[in-house]
Amino acid sequence: MLRKYTIFLLLMSGVFSCYSAPLPSWQDGESRQAIVSFVASVTDSSKPDFVPPEDRIAVFDNDGTLWSEQPMYFQLQYALDKLKERAKDDPSLLSSPVLKAAIEGDLKTALAGGVPALQEIINQSHANLSVSEFQREVRQWLNSAIHPTTGLRFYDMVYQPMQELVDYLESNDFTVYIVSGGGLHFLRAFAEQRYGLPPQQVVGSRGNVTYEVMDGTPIIVKTENVLFVDDGPGKPIGIDTHIGKKPIFAAGNSDGDYQMLQWTTSDSPSFGLLIHHTDEEREFAYDSPSHIGELKQGLQDAHANGWLVVDMKKDWKTVYPERP
Amino acid sequence: MLRKYTIFLLLMSGVFSCYSAPLPSWQDGESRQAIVSFVASVTDSSKPDFVPPEDRIAVFDNDGTLWSEQPMYFQLQYALDKLKERAKDDPSLLSSPVLKAAIEGDLKTALAGGVPALQEIINQSHANLSVSEFQREVRQWLNSAIHPTTGLRFYDMVYQPMQELVDYLESNDFTVYIVSGGGLHFLRAFAEQRYGLPPQQVVGSRGNVTYEVMDGTPIIVKTENVLFVDDGPGKPIGIDTHIGKKPIFAAGNSDGDYQMLQWTTSDSPSFGLLIHHTDEEREFAYDSPSHIGELKQGLQDAHANGWLVVDMKKDWKTVYPERP
Repeated sequence: MLRKYTIFLLLMSGVFSCYSAPLPSWQDGESRQAIVSFVASVTDSSKPDFVPPEDRIAVFDNDGTLWSEQPMYFQLQYALDKLKERAKDDPSLLSSPVLKAAIEGDLKTALAGGVPALQEIINQSHANLSVSEFQREVRQWLNSAIHPTTGLRFYDMVYQPMQELVDYLESNDFTVYIVSGGGLHFLRAFAEQRYGLPPQQVVGSRGNVTYEVMDGTPIIVKTENVLFVDDGPGKPIGIDTHIGKKPIFAAGNSDGDYQMLQWTTSDSPSFGLLIHHTDEEREFAYDSPSHIGELKQGLQDAHANGWLVVDMKKDWKTVYPERP
Repeated sequence: MLRKYTIFLLLMSGVFSCYSAPLPSWQDGESRQAIVSFVASVTDSSKPDFVPPEDRIAVFDNDGTLWSEQPMYFQLQYALDKLKERAKDDPSLLSSPVLKAAIEGDLKTALAGGVPALQEIINQSHANLSVSEFQREVRQWLNSAIHPTTGLRFYDMVYQPMQELVDYLESNDFTVYIVSGGGLHFLRAFAEQRYGLPPQQVVGSRGNVTYEVMDGTPIIVKTENVLFVDDGPGKPIGIDTHIGKKPIFAAGNSDGDYQMLQWTTSDSPSFGLLIHHTDEEREFAYDSPSHIGELKQGLQDAHANGWLVVDMKKDWKTVYPERP
């Protein structure tokens, strides 16, 4: 009797997991409903909006869309930590005013020089090592580095509702790409393990690389200077270069995602989604003005463009995943 | 009785098609056997060389590897045909010595200026139109343009044995990419229809593009000048940018593919394949010196590097597919 009951329970749990509602960390409101309705309409071959699986391309910004980005892009935090490490071995780094300020945490001074200053920081922290060595260093850092205000590992500051959205789209035969202003090689160091997105589904900013044969072993070496910035109008260009198809779903959180959403939603059916950071208790609250992830034009035009604005505070039951 | 017999035949044909030998246009010799053995060893989970499907990346050069490339790259022939067309509308093109020679078919004079001359021809034939408009023009051309010596459409000058190889790898859960010195947008105009390879599985040379909004409609516009040349050491770099994983199978035909094969076969298990153009009757015979697709270093090092050299004349039963 007990055994039969156990089997019954197992069967029922199977039934429930098959039919469990998608996006469990989303409040059951208009935002969740809009997403589910869109996916239903493009996956139902009897509907006029049906899209065949090979054209179900979804693109997601990373910083501020898949994980947090305050008080500074996590990759910039990585760069500063690496600089400090390098300065221990090579104190001559401290003779550069930009690097000295950066190492001391005085970002305002360090970045006052604009793009060339940022370039100097990136060169000193990201260049002159092989791609595989760089990615090993990034993984080591993500494994241990702790966010200054939440006390969480940066690696664990992904948004649980967005991870569910990625998984939900994939389970509906979408191919999901990250399209981020962050570095291509930086993102790929963790995207597969963290988001389940393999390297070929990552589009990002890129620096120069060279192909070299060292002692008979060929390697790809990251060299100095940025080659391509995958932000703003760079996002549709990055999508064209890497994917070659117009997506039907785009998610972002800042005006750097505006053109990606504009490009995606210029054909129908399509879906544009903007994360609005409204939750200062559970995450951060900011839109415009903001030193990072400014969202102004996107908010102004979202209604006219038919884009969904997700209110983190209202729409999400949880922000970060529970630690295992 | 007749009906039963018909059903029996249908069943048997099903059985035979399931178990038909792969690569039917390849002679049953060492080359075919080497490919089949490799695929068997990396797809059998009980073997030490087993590679999980997500890491079964195969890369193919296009010109001279998937289709012919003599007497000139087909894309260059396209450029010349487009130039002639444009010169009809705009005779001022004839005032440029390079373009005038190119339009008159005097390639030796036209290309005497080296890269800047080629750049001028590419700019005038490939730039200042949207990606989708460009690809429409390429498809129109491929639909009708005839090769000067074979009388076949360029579009039909793909190698049947190589198409079978692409299909065979895909049926063994490889993901197959084109990695070509040819233009990214040019290749994508026909790769899906011709080879069954979607745009995101095409890596190629690229020119500049911009993102523009014209009368409210966003478009990607091809602008002037080449940005990235996917040839020689550019091939492993293109693979790193687009795929982010080292392939386990690489096929090429010229020294422009050397680094791609070198990179691919620097880890084990892996397979490097070079097409040797030995068949002047059915295709063309050339290796070194050659004005196109020179193969010298590759032939010299193939044995030491463990690369398979495919002898077109001996190894292939057919070259081009039969016209439907």
